[in-house]
Amino acid sequence: MSGGEFDLIAWIRQHSTPAGIVRVGIGDDCAVLAPEGPGELLVTTDMLLDGRHFRLAEHDPADIARKALLVNLSDLAAMAGIPQAAVVAVALPIDAPGGPQRLGRALHAALAQAASEYSVVLAGGDTNAWRGPLVLSVTLIGQATPPGPVLRAGARPGDVLFVTGSLGGSLLGRHLRPSPRVAEGVALRRELGVQLHAMIDISDGLAVDLGHILAESGGLGATLEAEAIPTHRDAVALGAEDGRSPLEHALHDGEDFELCLAVEAAAADRLADGLFADRSLALHRIGTVEAEPGLRLRHGDGRVEVIEPLGFDHFRPTPGVSP
Amino acid sequence: MSGGEFDLIAWIRQHSTPAGIVRVGIGDDCAVLAPEGPGELLVTTDMLLDGRHFRLAEHDPADIARKALLVNLSDLAAMAGIPQAAVVAVALPIDAPGGPQRLGRALHAALAQAASEYSVVLAGGDTNAWRGPLVLSVTLIGQATPPGPVLRAGARPGDVLFVTGSLGGSLLGRHLRPSPRVAEGVALRRELGVQLHAMIDISDGLAVDLGHILAESGGLGATLEAEAIPTHRDAVALGAEDGRSPLEHALHDGEDFELCLAVEAAAADRLADGLFADRSLALHRIGTVEAEPGLRLRHGDGRVEVIEPLGFDHFRPTPGVSP
Repeated sequence: MSGGEFDLIAWIRQHSTPAGIVRVGIGDDCAVLAPEGPGELLVTTDMLLDGRHFRLAEHDPADIARKALLVNLSDLAAMAGIPQAAVVAVALPIDAPGGPQRLGRALHAALAQAASEYSVVLAGGDTNAWRGPLVLSVTLIGQATPPGPVLRAGARPGDVLFVTGSLGGSLLGRHLRPSPRVAEGVALRRELGVQLHAMIDISDGLAVDLGHILAESGGLGATLEAEAIPTHRDAVALGAEDGRSPLEHALHDGEDFELCLAVEAAAADRLADGLFADRSLALHRIGTVEAEPGLRLRHGDGRVEVIEPLGFDHFRPTPGVSP
Repeated sequence: MSGGEFDLIAWIRQHSTPAGIVRVGIGDDCAVLAPEGPGELLVTTDMLLDGRHFRLAEHDPADIARKALLVNLSDLAAMAGIPQAAVVAVALPIDAPGGPQRLGRALHAALAQAASEYSVVLAGGDTNAWRGPLVLSVTLIGQATPPGPVLRAGARPGDVLFVTGSLGGSLLGRHLRPSPRVAEGVALRRELGVQLHAMIDISDGLAVDLGHILAESGGLGATLEAEAIPTHRDAVALGAEDGRSPLEHALHDGEDFELCLAVEAAAADRLADGLFADRSLALHRIGTVEAEPGLRLRHGDGRVEVIEPLGFDHFRPTPGVSP
């Protein structure tokens, strides 16, 4: 088996220790988890593909591996979940520079580092080599923050909408190095309890992802205040290149990996910027949920514009890096 | 989004219902599971790749999708786990005949059917299209059978070794339609309790997989009785083609997806064929665990031969279908 799969697995295993809720980790037929308490478990999975979500020829394997975990952490953050364990399936290109083993080790080292930063234990996986492009598929398991997971469904007319951070232009490079708002999701749930009605992470663009909240909450609508939507400096830079406004980028670009949430109006004023341990991260009040379906944008001059969702469609047959 | 990713997800969602331990299924950021009782959870993941584990151009998509779930069920069976929920990540080739949507629906229908047969709830997933080959990655979650999961580690000198079913020649087609021994794993644990010391499913070949049990159990060895090893009729047929003996196929071929187990000697006689609900499935006593490392084969004439593990190496740079 020299140079083979078992060498890589043995190496990964030497660099992994069961911890947290993981009782048996890498190296058996299944991982064995012993969750604390009787609470609900959250499970999410995301697959990253060379040529679709990244380019192995251009991007650092460490960034690629980190992103594979971080996008899952962002999904977990959207439910206010507390990360616990992950399993990773990988298909390594047999013709990778330096060989698949070397690439496998580089990916694992970066995954392990990212896992450690977010208190995730790498509990198991499946390692393959093939003649195709690099594929990384991560499944993340977490536990819910009391009083339970925050769903997309649950927004009500009158709720106030917030987003964390600022939006747009992630294509300039930020999309490869997300900062999933895990601690922020948990802090919001702890602060607001059941007054936090609905939450989602922004992966397909604010308009599309807020649209999911509104649709899942029974076909509601919302009006956003154009001047309140936080545009990232990358949205400005990208707009200068492509002629679209920073606001358009903030509304429609994908892979911001910020949180969008609907909060009971009576609780909205409680949400001060000081809620997050990272004081540089702001919480922006961007609009209001309404009974009337549709997504509307109110400009500073009072003009109201209907927004059509234009977010990233993973089936669009355009090659290249999303969004 | 017409014809896009959200159409397929909406279709999958219409054909899925949360049940069992799944409280929130397909369509939110995470699946929400509410496990019964405080027991341990088992998690396993396997990725199937076109050209490596199957050929989309030759094989029925329904067989491919079923196999993606069934190989995970086999890993769970090896721990005597009770299946509960699965998440599925898929990369659909954009140039699939009939389009990626149609392929996605065919795969989902077959997955849903297989999941239903084994009481698994499809709880979530990630759906992508790309210019690469078909990739299916399934993560399966189960609960342990009391008194707990059966690990690879735990065999002791003097233990009796058994396998379910018969072995070898799965390449003739059986490898695509596995029968994971889920009910059998649970029945063995219930019957034997802590006297079931170690178990593994045979995916890389009996010699390699038994080798894992012996290595994990502290570097033990075993002697197998050549005449007791159950050779499948496919091992005979394949041997007639390639000149290798049926016994060689039974020892070294992969993807049998039978169970290999080490049982305390005092309990071995309790294991009658009638243990399994499927009375056509036999349990074969094939040898004994020994303190002396290495794997040995005793022939009918008393001659003892040392077996070198020759099983499937997923990194072997040979294209084609495993094993």
